[in-house]
Amino acid sequence: MDAFSSTLLIVAGGSLLALGYAAMKTRWIFRQAADNPKLVKIGGFVAEGAMAFLTREYKVLIPFVLVVAAFLAVANQGVLRWQAFAFVVGAAASALAGFIGMKVATAANTRTTHAAQGGLIPALKVAFTGGSVMGMSVVGLSMLGFCILFFLGRQFFGSSLEVLDGQILPVVTGFSLGASSMALFARVGGGIFTKAADVGADLVGKVEAGIPEDDHRNPATIADNVGDNVGDVAGMGADLFESYVGSIIGAMVLGVSVVGSDAFRLRLVVFPLLLAVAGIVAAMIGVAFVRVKEGQSPQSALNKGTFGAAAVAALFSFLLCHFFLGGGKAVSSLSVFFASVLGMVAGTLIGMITEYYTGTDTKPVNKIVSACETGAATTLITGMGVGMASAFIPIVIIVAAILSSFALAGLYGIAIAALGMLMTLGVQLAVDAYGPIADNAGGLAEMAEFPPEVRDITDELDAVGNTTAAIGKGFAIGSAALTAIILFTAFQQQVGVGIINLMDPKVVSGVLLGAVLPYLFSSMAMNAVGEAAFAMIKEVRRQFREKPGILKETEEPDYKKCVDISTAAALKGMIIPGVVAVLTPVLVGFIGGPTMLAGTLIGVTASGVVLAIFMSNAGGAWDNAKKMIEGGASQGKGSEAHKAAVVGDTVGDPFKDTAGPSLNILLKLMAIISLVIAPMLKNYWGL
Amino acid sequence: MDAFSSTLLIVAGGSLLALGYAAMKTRWIFRQAADNPKLVKIGGFVAEGAMAFLTREYKVLIPFVLVVAAFLAVANQGVLRWQAFAFVVGAAASALAGFIGMKVATAANTRTTHAAQGGLIPALKVAFTGGSVMGMSVVGLSMLGFCILFFLGRQFFGSSLEVLDGQILPVVTGFSLGASSMALFARVGGGIFTKAADVGADLVGKVEAGIPEDDHRNPATIADNVGDNVGDVAGMGADLFESYVGSIIGAMVLGVSVVGSDAFRLRLVVFPLLLAVAGIVAAMIGVAFVRVKEGQSPQSALNKGTFGAAAVAALFSFLLCHFFLGGGKAVSSLSVFFASVLGMVAGTLIGMITEYYTGTDTKPVNKIVSACETGAATTLITGMGVGMASAFIPIVIIVAAILSSFALAGLYGIAIAALGMLMTLGVQLAVDAYGPIADNAGGLAEMAEFPPEVRDITDELDAVGNTTAAIGKGFAIGSAALTAIILFTAFQQQVGVGIINLMDPKVVSGVLLGAVLPYLFSSMAMNAVGEAAFAMIKEVRRQFREKPGILKETEEPDYKKCVDISTAAALKGMIIPGVVAVLTPVLVGFIGGPTMLAGTLIGVTASGVVLAIFMSNAGGAWDNAKKMIEGGASQGKGSEAHKAAVVGDTVGDPFKDTAGPSLNILLKLMAIISLVIAPMLKNYWGL
Repeated sequence: MDAFSSTLLIVAGGSLLALGYAAMKTRWIFRQAADNPKLVKIGGFVAEGAMAFLTREYKVLIPFVLVVAAFLAVANQGVLRWQAFAFVVGAAASALAGFIGMKVATAANTRTTHAAQGGLIPALKVAFTGGSVMGMSVVGLSMLGFCILFFLGRQFFGSSLEVLDGQILPVVTGFSLGASSMALFARVGGGIFTKAADVGADLVGKVEAGIPEDDHRNPATIADNVGDNVGDVAGMGADLFESYVGSIIGAMVLGVSVVGSDAFRLRLVVFPLLLAVAGIVAAMIGVAFVRVKEGQSPQSALNKGTFGAAAVAALFSFLLCHFFLGGGKAVSSLSVFFASVLGMVAGTLIGMITEYYTGTDTKPVNKIVSACETGAATTLITGMGVGMASAFIPIVIIVAAILSSFALAGLYGIAIAALGMLMTLGVQLAVDAYGPIADNAGGLAEMAEFPPEVRDITDELDAVGNTTAAIGKGFAIGSAALTAIILFTAFQQQVGVGIINLMDPKVVSGVLLGAVLPYLFSSMAMNAVGEAAFAMIKEVRRQFREKPGILKETEEPDYKKCVDISTAAALKGMIIPGVVAVLTPVLVGFIGGPTMLAGTLIGVTASGVVLAIFMSNAGGAWDNAKKMIEGGASQGKGSEAHKAAVVGDTVGDPFKDTAGPSLNILLKLMAIISLVIAPMLKNYWGL
Repeated sequence: MDAFSSTLLIVAGGSLLALGYAAMKTRWIFRQAADNPKLVKIGGFVAEGAMAFLTREYKVLIPFVLVVAAFLAVANQGVLRWQAFAFVVGAAASALAGFIGMKVATAANTRTTHAAQGGLIPALKVAFTGGSVMGMSVVGLSMLGFCILFFLGRQFFGSSLEVLDGQILPVVTGFSLGASSMALFARVGGGIFTKAADVGADLVGKVEAGIPEDDHRNPATIADNVGDNVGDVAGMGADLFESYVGSIIGAMVLGVSVVGSDAFRLRLVVFPLLLAVAGIVAAMIGVAFVRVKEGQSPQSALNKGTFGAAAVAALFSFLLCHFFLGGGKAVSSLSVFFASVLGMVAGTLIGMITEYYTGTDTKPVNKIVSACETGAATTLITGMGVGMASAFIPIVIIVAAILSSFALAGLYGIAIAALGMLMTLGVQLAVDAYGPIADNAGGLAEMAEFPPEVRDITDELDAVGNTTAAIGKGFAIGSAALTAIILFTAFQQQVGVGIINLMDPKVVSGVLLGAVLPYLFSSMAMNAVGEAAFAMIKEVRRQFREKPGILKETEEPDYKKCVDISTAAALKGMIIPGVVAVLTPVLVGFIGGPTMLAGTLIGVTASGVVLAIFMSNAGGAWDNAKKMIEGGASQGKGSEAHKAAVVGDTVGDPFKDTAGPSLNILLKLMAIISLVIAPMLKNYWGL
């Protein structure tokens, strides 16, 4: 059996392993108790709202997917028409992962609240297990998608390197495009949904009606809790699904162009798939490491999981490089191993820097806390200064990773580094998705009027969730940057332009144009949040006015209407940014040409990554500055400093949860669209 | 006589014309009356403070200039050692222009207040005449500098094209570097000075002590008025001096590489100088157009000046192209003419877009006004959305200008477009510098307790000044972008790297690194403002506490101490950003190599231009939203909406007056440093 065929078997095995694990954990979650009737009822509203959003989102998505698939089938020629099929598989796989993740997360939240009655340890276990389903579903379904497509490709086209390079891989880029399209909907739409609900609920509830956060009388509060799932579970999952798939395909494409024997090159091409499967096993081991003992902090338990998984992954990578790649000439197996480790190290370092700039009681956040004492204006100026400064080191790390992995193993090395950053995605995503589950559990405890001790435990879990969320965002941005650069390189190879010269004013113009797009995109996303929040405020005011019994608890608020408003706003708000992201590469490519498009891709990547880091970290820092003041720092809760901190946090919300993360999608989506249309551009421009 | 020598005579004539005009107008200003003793006294404090700042600034500048000059003399070889001399001339010329401009502006302010007693027309005349001295000094001194250097170059080296290309022009880039260094000090230092004083004066005066803006009892109020001169007169002047000189030298360097006969190429090389002289004459005609009749608005008078000058400049450009360049082959004279007009049109369009996004009662600013009604957070989110969206069209305009002027006349065409944008700098800068003079006149009227009618007139002048300031910033950014791109192109030609391939990870890394620098730079500038404002607040509180007589008007506040604090903060605050701007190209060039440096330059330009437009326009829009509410829009002065607008304006201040404009300097300075070290890099890397 050739290397390609045996790899497919292993990929199938890895996929089944991950999915089986997810199924087992799902069963476990649903078996946990959640018997308080009020909790069950309110939890039911959240689960229902989340499904309502997904259903409406998929209703918009299906026609979109069909139109794009039809376009791919018509605009392409020959074998490439099959891109349409791969595209549908990609969108479906990502959508299914989101669906499973949300379903389990909205079941795990009530069960976490219930478990919190028994203490921190059982609550952590439920919340993290819920998160691990999301993580394993994402890696399992992406492997399943690859498996199906490569298997069909092998059956119909063959399994030689030539066929892989010329036919199968170009078709499979459609899979990545499908994942990207889904990510656009989930991340941008989810980001708008969650912040519209959050800002709307806070402004009317806390400020106008004077009722606490997460009070069940507030009609927008269910939408707020739904938003955490929509934005942080489904949105983050789709984002990283895309990066994962994109970096694997990018690495496979770049493997073809390494100089060496055909047999060796074939190994390089399938190697990323094997590395991913090894990562799945490492992630499972990591998940098993997450155990908290009495007296230990949940953070250290989670850290054990991610670092443990990384150590195991590094070991696996070494073994794979040594035994599977060993003996290659142009690229030494050890270099590939080091490149994969470089990616892991870079991702971890970016996460640590993110924690420094946004964590509790760090120097930059303390500076914001002091600035709160002189009012909202200084809070904002200082926070933006912190956010801007925070972008520098991560960029230096990314640059160092690019240059060193290139020095080790050429362009292929960069691709392996990108994949290395995401190798243990299963556990990374489990940690990410744990956050919103814990957050939801706290909200449910409040709404279902559980005793304060329960809320204390969920608060402790939630506080850890904020840090992991910030680190997760750093990871998501870092991997998006590397993935975009790999896809860009793959684009250049596919389009057949040997040199993209910065001396050419077209290229420079492309870079300038690319640099402004993240700003346009962010502006649109933030506007959508503003408008949706305003609609939400009007609706909540209407309910309070027309049903005075709500505040007296004699009438039930209409939660569904608020979920509807956020849903409609999210779906409406993502149309124009989506159109910009999709059409820009097409227009620039066909009007300005492939070199100008290459410039645009680099411009959007460089400017977008920096802007995303700035926005995410400024938002995270404001959030924790507010939390510190609420926890007693500076003048404490209710003071003038606290009011200033609330303004900072409210500005930071759309920064860190809507605009910032949406930029990851923008740059990857533009790169993958360019890669997909590369054969058409090659044809059109006669290259 | 050869084309070079005759051009030098014309340049000398243009320079003397501009400087003679400035001298005449200066004499006129000093002859105007300002006899109110209180006005004279307070105006004296402002003038004294401004000179105190300049003196201290120059004291820091001189050792810096000497060190850099010594470095240039030592690190260079052969003829290039003369760069050191050119560098000193550039720094001195720019410093002298700043000195003259400030001296006249701080004399014109009191005289404008005095003239305002007689109505709008005489007040406008004094303020604008004051501004025109700055405009004419900048263009006159830059021409004088060129004249001296080229004359010496011709005497020592010769006047052939070969000598110009290989010896004189590389030496004269030192002139541009000198101007850039001065701009760094004036723009960054000035920006920190002015905002530290402004924020400090407002927070203690208006908020804590409850005294009105510009009240003479506030010790920081003089520093605030000094700041307007330091930032908006000297800072803006040095910024545009640098763009002007940079675009002329860049165009000359690029003229050499056009294909054609030696005689024709020599004409192309000296043509930018002739175009600049024609622009001086056009600007003088434009200045003469600025006349306001009873019942007309000052804005339309200023518009007549700028548009009139542009029309005359276009005519001159046509004549020059036709008679001086006519008959060329590779580049048609008509194409060069169109390129120059393209630059003028692009600059004007960017100005108009800026006015739309930041002007009074426009759709975006009205949106901010509405957002003020729901508090500071929505004010900030909406304002940032507006600022981000505002960057898109200007970038499209810049891209269109680059691509069309390149299509017309190659790289030389782009350079001519950049110069076209600055051709009538004399009148553009007059309009810019008019703003702070009018603003100061208003402050002086308040402090010297003139009747409210006088203040009404100065307020009307000041309102116009806000719009012209916003447009001027748009112009400054647009010209900085084009100048940086030209200098970049010139750098590539000098360093001898034929191709800078975006496929090379070094280049991509350079772009990423470049993209983050504007954020780092902005963060440092904003931090410096925050720290300085805090020091100012402490000092004002101390004076109020230790001299209780100040508020009762029995004791005189210590204005000088506040000026000192702002000065010290400004000089301290610009050191690290300055070091970053200066060292980055050197380090990247010698460690990463010329291709990585090229990537860095494009990254810093693309990211910096977009960030600068975002910051300047968000700041301008917040400022005018606040002014609209103070003028009765929304809930009016003193309302909750007004408080929210004040927060927006305070955040916008360092955006638009410190960080945003400083970025112009960052990208030009890095480009010019790269151009200066290009021969060393060529040598070092053996290219």
